[in-house]
Parts: sequence; C-alpha cells; structure tokens
Amino acid sequence: MTYTAAADQFIAGSTNAEVSEADRSRVFHSWSAQGALNPLPIAGGSGCMLWDFDGKQYLDFSSQLVNVTIGYQHPKVVAAIQRQADKLTTIAPAQANETRAHAAELITDLAPDGFNKVFFTNGGADAIENAIRMARLFTGRDKIISRYRSYHGNTGAAIVATGDWRRIPNEYARGHVHVFGPYLYRSEFWATSEQEECERALHHLERVIQAEGPESVAAILLETIPGTAGIMPPPPGYLSGARQIADRYGILLILDEVMAGFGRTGEWLALDAYDVRPDLITFAKGVNSGYVPLGGVIISDPIAHHFDERVFPGGLTYSGHPLATASAIATIEAMREEKIVENAAQIGAEVIGPRLQEIAAQREVVGEVRGKGVFWAIELVADRETKEPLGAPEMGKIKAGLLERGLLPFISDNRIHVVPPAIITADEANRGLDIIDETLAAYRP
Amino acid sequence: MTYTAAADQFIAGSTNAEVSEADRSRVFHSWSAQGALNPLPIAGGSGCMLWDFDGKQYLDFSSQLVNVTIGYQHPKVVAAIQRQADKLTTIAPAQANETRAHAAELITDLAPDGFNKVFFTNGGADAIENAIRMARLFTGRDKIISRYRSYHGNTGAAIVATGDWRRIPNEYARGHVHVFGPYLYRSEFWATSEQEECERALHHLERVIQAEGPESVAAILLETIPGTAGIMPPPPGYLSGARQIADRYGILLILDEVMAGFGRTGEWLALDAYDVRPDLITFAKGVNSGYVPLGGVIISDPIAHHFDERVFPGGLTYSGHPLATASAIATIEAMREEKIVENAAQIGAEVIGPRLQEIAAQREVVGEVRGKGVFWAIELVADRETKEPLGAPEMGKIKAGLLERGLLPFISDNRIHVVPPAIITADEANRGLDIIDETLAAYRP
Repeated sequence: MTYTAAADQFIAGSTNAEVSEADRSRVFHSWSAQGALNPLPIAGGSGCMLWDFDGKQYLDFSSQLVNVTIGYQHPKVVAAIQRQADKLTTIAPAQANETRAHAAELITDLAPDGFNKVFFTNGGADAIENAIRMARLFTGRDKIISRYRSYHGNTGAAIVATGDWRRIPNEYARGHVHVFGPYLYRSEFWATSEQEECERALHHLERVIQAEGPESVAAILLETIPGTAGIMPPPPGYLSGARQIADRYGILLILDEVMAGFGRTGEWLALDAYDVRPDLITFAKGVNSGYVPLGGVIISDPIAHHFDERVFPGGLTYSGHPLATASAIATIEAMREEKIVENAAQIGAEVIGPRLQEIAAQREVVGEVRGKGVFWAIELVADRETKEPLGAPEMGKIKAGLLERGLLPFISDNRIHVVPPAIITADEANRGLDIIDETLAAYRP
Repeated sequence: MTYTAAADQFIAGSTNAEVSEADRSRVFHSWSAQGALNPLPIAGGSGCMLWDFDGKQYLDFSSQLVNVTIGYQHPKVVAAIQRQADKLTTIAPAQANETRAHAAELITDLAPDGFNKVFFTNGGADAIENAIRMARLFTGRDKIISRYRSYHGNTGAAIVATGDWRRIPNEYARGHVHVFGPYLYRSEFWATSEQEECERALHHLERVIQAEGPESVAAILLETIPGTAGIMPPPPGYLSGARQIADRYGILLILDEVMAGFGRTGEWLALDAYDVRPDLITFAKGVNSGYVPLGGVIISDPIAHHFDERVFPGGLTYSGHPLATASAIATIEAMREEKIVENAAQIGAEVIGPRLQEIAAQREVVGEVRGKGVFWAIELVADRETKEPLGAPEMGKIKAGLLERGLLPFISDNRIHVVPPAIITADEANRGLDIIDETLAAYRP
C-alpha cells in the first residue's frame, strides 16, 4: 500500500547523479570499501514504495535494514513526530517526561507479565550493551554465550556478542563465547530431523556452558529468530530448552527482538509464538520503524528491582528521547488499529510462504526457503546436493536483476531475505514474488 | 531568550505528580538507583526556559546533558524536522540521501582542511566506538590511551576509554590505558605553574606510551576540553605536545568534541582555539542540540582513503538518519545566521567569566572557577587549603537550593557546571549567576 500518491512532488530538483556525487564526496558508509560504492539514491517513499530522483519506483522487499515495518511515511506516525516537535524535541533522561512514560507503558504491555520497566536506548546495539551490563551485574558473572550465526549490533560488546564475520575485525571486548545453534539445513550436529537438530543443539549449548564453567556465565543471548544471519525459526523446544539449561545453572536468558520483534514475524514479539520466558528483551527497529532512532531493554521485575537500591552504571544522553518515544506510541497505536501484525501473519501464511515453496520447487538455484510473517529467507545454492552457497558474483547478478525489475531486495551472503513492510498487500507481495521468480528463472550460473 | 511565550499551553492536562508516578512505574533511569529517584517532571521549554506541569519555571543552566546548545524549541530546527518528516523519515545507510550528504558537507566545512568525510552515528558513544575502530584498523595496533578524568560514552569500548568511576563497573573491553592529564588545581605532577603542569603531563603521557610499547598504541583519545570530568581547558602547548608525541611514534590523535564542540566553547569546534590537528574528530550533542539523536566521526583524508579499497567493518541501522541530519543542517544554519557561537564567546568573556571570578573571590566554598564560552565549572571545596571536595550531602543541599530558586543546574561530583544554552542573553546569564551567588552565600556547612 501507499499512504499518498506524493511521489511526483519529490522528484523535481535534484537528480540521481547529483545526489550520488554529493553522497560519495562526503558520506562514509557502513560495512563497505568506500571506493567501490554505488549507493542507490532515494528521493522519497510511501507505504511499500520508494522512488529515486529520476522517477524510477521500487517495491521495497527490504524494509531498509528490516526496520520499516509500518512502511514509509505512515501519516499517523509522521503527525506524531510533528506534534511532539512542536511541543518538546528533547529532554534529558534524568527528568520525568509523559511521552517517555507512556511509550514505556505501551511497550511493557506487549511483553510477558512481570516485565514492567523499559530502559530506552538509541538503537539495537546499545540495547544489547545494556542488557549484557544488567545480566553481568545481576549475576555477578562475566561470560555471555551467543550463537555464531547471529548479529547483535556494532558497539564494543554488541559486535563481539555477534557471531558472524563482522565480529572478527572487532574483537576488543572480553567475556564472549559462541555456540552453534539449530540450523538443520546446514547442521553442525550431523542431525537428520528437526527434533534431532534441536536436541543436539541443546546438548552442545549445555556442554559448552559446562566446559566454560557455569559459574562464569552471566547470560545466554539469542535472537528469538536469528535475522541477518539467515532467518532461522528455532525448532519447537529449542528456546524452552535453552531456558531450562539457563535455570539449571543460574544463568539469565536474553532474547534479542531487535529485528524479529514488533510485528515482523506476525506476532507482536517473536517470542509470543514459543513457550519461553526470557529475563531481558531487547528491541529497536519495528518499535517505531526507525522513524526516529530508538531501541531499548524490557526488564523483568527481579532484575529491575535489583537496581532499586544499587546504582545502575549505564546511560546515554538521548535515552527516552521525546521524538523517538512519541513515534513509538503512534506506531504501536497505528499497528493495533490497522491490524498490521495480523496482516503480517496472514500474508506470510497465505501468500509469501506458499509462493516461496512453489519457487523453491521450480528453481534449481533455491536450496531452502524458511520463515514466517514478513520474515523469510531464500537460500541460494550452486548445487542442491552439496548445498554449496551461491558465490558473491552470482548474488551480485541476482541483486542487479531484482533492482532492474523494480524490487529493492535485502541480500545477505547467499540469501535473498523477503522482508517487506508488514503493511504489504497480497497484490504487492505477489508482484514482488513474481519479480523474484522471474529473476531466478532468468539466472544462469 | 525564549522563542515563544507558549508555556501556558502545555501546563494543562497532567500534573507533576501524575507524570512522576507514570515515570517511576515504567521508566528505568540511567546512572541511578531506581528506588530513590525523584526525577523533575518537565512539560515544555523555549529558549533557555523550561517549565513543569504545575507551572513552575526554570532557567536552564544545564542544557540538559550539555547538549541543548541552541536552546529549547528553536523554530527553525523544529520546522526542519517537521518538513523532513513530511518528506522521508528514514532511509538505510546504504542508500544515497541528499539531506545526509548536505549535513556531511556542512559539518566537514567546519572542520580543519583535509577532513572531508563524515561517518554518522546515533550519539557520542558510538562515535567514539567507530573512531577507535578506525584508529585500530588504520594503525594495525591495539591500545587506546585516554585520561582518567574523562567521559567518552557508555558502550563496550567507549565506557572503558572513559576514565572516571563510571568505567569501573563496566571494564569488559580490552586495550585501554589511562593517563593523568594537566589539571593544575589538583596536580598529579607536583607542579606549581600551568607551564610546569603542561610539561610534566606531556612527560607522563610519553613515559606511559614508552612503557606500554609505542608499537602497541593505536591512538591517544582526548576530549579537547574534558567536560563532565570537570571542564579543564588544557594549558597552552598540551594538545600540540600530545600531537608531537603521537607523531613521534606513529600514533593517531582522536579529539572528542562530543560535549565541547559545536559552539559550546565559543568556537565552532573547541580545537579551533588550539594549535593542534587531530586525525579523527568525534561529535554529537551540539551538532543538532539533541533534537534528534545524532553523532559521528569527522575523518581526515588519509584515514578515509585507507578504507577506499578495504571494507570498513562498522555500521548501524540509523547511520545518517534523515530527520537527524535535517535537524543538523538547520541547527548549523541557524547558529550561523544568529551568530550563536559568537554569542557564547561574548557571554563567556564578558559575563560568566568575570562574574564567576567575583563569586570565587567572595564565597569561601569556591575552590576554583574555570572555563570559556558557555562551558564553565565552579569547583566547591570544604576547605580552601586542603582543597577537600565538598561531599555529596552538601552538594545535594546546594542543588536543592538552586532548583528552589528556579535554576536547573548541572552538578557533577563537587562541581556546579555553568553550561547554559549558547543563545543565553546577558540578562539571563546574570539572573542565573545571581541565583548561584545567593545559594552559595546562603550555604552553611
């Protein structure tokens, strides 16, 4: 859907070439060699559509960095930002502010019972930093266990909690230990069924904890559904099994809902679909679709009360920022009113899931598809037998083919992630899936 | 100054008690024991004035966390946020965006020649994280030298780069070494003059580097003027001396301008007043007065070019956020048009400096005053001879006295920091200084 037909008004003025040149000369980009960059110039957007300065339109199957869950320029959220800007743009964390308090109330209302406080941050990485800090101080222990296939943000501790390659040039924090998680398609445990994969992954997790020394482990940190690492819904029993292991050794469980939370999976929180109760929940992205930088930690009562008489030694200038929390209030309200989470669930179950299964059946290059809601991965392989991942040059060609056909994709390693805004209609979803199918049909190694 | 006389419109509706209660029940606060909190409810603000929900007004001598340099609700910055919200609230760092590119241009234009790229972050801590990352990757070295009396933010590496007590419960990053800096009032070097303090602090810095192994040191990280640690303008020759030491050993110099930069000292960048050229400059706060969370690193050409062919392994979802960069553009333009930086310099030289000297001469409890622009510290002592810092209960009484008289102060350890918005008029400054003088006159140990 598009909220307005306002595309035209933003195309005049600059051109793609001018904006690209201005960008290249002054902006230092993330996760890139700066010399080879060719960033896509984006002039504006509405709903699930974006357009560049030359008038080319794109259907967004990326939600940018899987954050624009409510789509571009939702009128209610835009209006809330503008109203709050009229009222009070900024106030320090030390003061009391009604917008911040109301956002905290709406967010804790979405969490399991017994989660009654929110510590606000600017995004996901500093949410993870503070959750780790709380876990270490609460337990008096040091180590954080997380998965190799994971991404938890890129500040000192968050990037070392991260398991993927982005950790390796950044390993300057100590106290991080990594394990393999359940991922049957590329099992690290020689498993042949979901149940076996689950049991063996839990055995492995417990053995690493025993070998590290359980009394040294503060927390197990898991993305409820690992996101950028490959969108791997955990098999039934994995999260509750991790919870049991944590309890056995007095270890906390932190669930990272930065990418999976706030509607992405067709649930308010991804953990709602599993029989698991964490001690801390981190969030960002979908909470306000990134309209203003915002993240945070939802804190269970025992941990919150631990700091009633003890100073919590963490903070940041923009914690609980009024514009950010105003946009979170409007986002949650709009998602409720417009049944956006329900839409994500339905589109996933009725359109994206079935069509991806069809595509997988027809296109040799697809190794596996998996996901739920508006949170899916298509894993591309050079060979279905060996499961050899499709290489970077081939993925580059597929990305170019998708862009050429008017789809903005999210590509990660050998995967296309199908992660549109949660407001997507069945028509739009089918249009994007047609483009993916066409592009994969046209692909020649 | 106040931008509007809009105080009345925000007082209706909630009460202080209601907002405090809502805050206490749901919001987890920074740097505090949660049980003892009594946060000041703030309903709105304009210029240098704030008001609570019961109609009490406060003259702001804190700029919140020393970030609201342009004052509350500057109409040009508010309008820029609202316009950008109409256009495009959010876009990923990987795309090209004209607002982001324009902000980067204005920011690099304020930096020394040869600084042509900006990496945007959400605030100061992640600016420091990324500057440290760049320095380590550029030099291939590990250690970061910073001052004990410093604060650099609170994520994994930033908090360990920090020297003050806030580091100690958070030491989970490695590769950080601390030194004493020049601070004649409490010299660590048995010095009796500024020149001696400077020479000895440089000697100490070089000896630590030699003892650590210069080939292991990536960067010296210094706040140009340490802020929360006590607002200690460096003696002439210290920063250029640190630069020379850095050059002698192939070490980079990072200047942290998060608090001191963008007008606070009466210069665009605090480093403009010193004969020093860093390799990396971090910023946040004043760049847009915190109207939207924003920070970043200004990168000198050799370091930027180092990553032309090498992947920079850092990033964050909201890097170069459109609302944040739009507010930075408007802030810089308004500060230029309204000569706000010049105002800060003049008020500091003509009002705050002279009056603080008078207060220091008259009030026994004042040990030293120091600063420039709208960036001053009043150091309070129990005894002028021994320089014993005034204790926390006494500082609490003074803080209560200032609030009672309608001044919102910034208290840090045994100091009152005089850090109002840079738009402050001479009348407002005198009014606030009257309140400080009265409060100190009324103070009895």
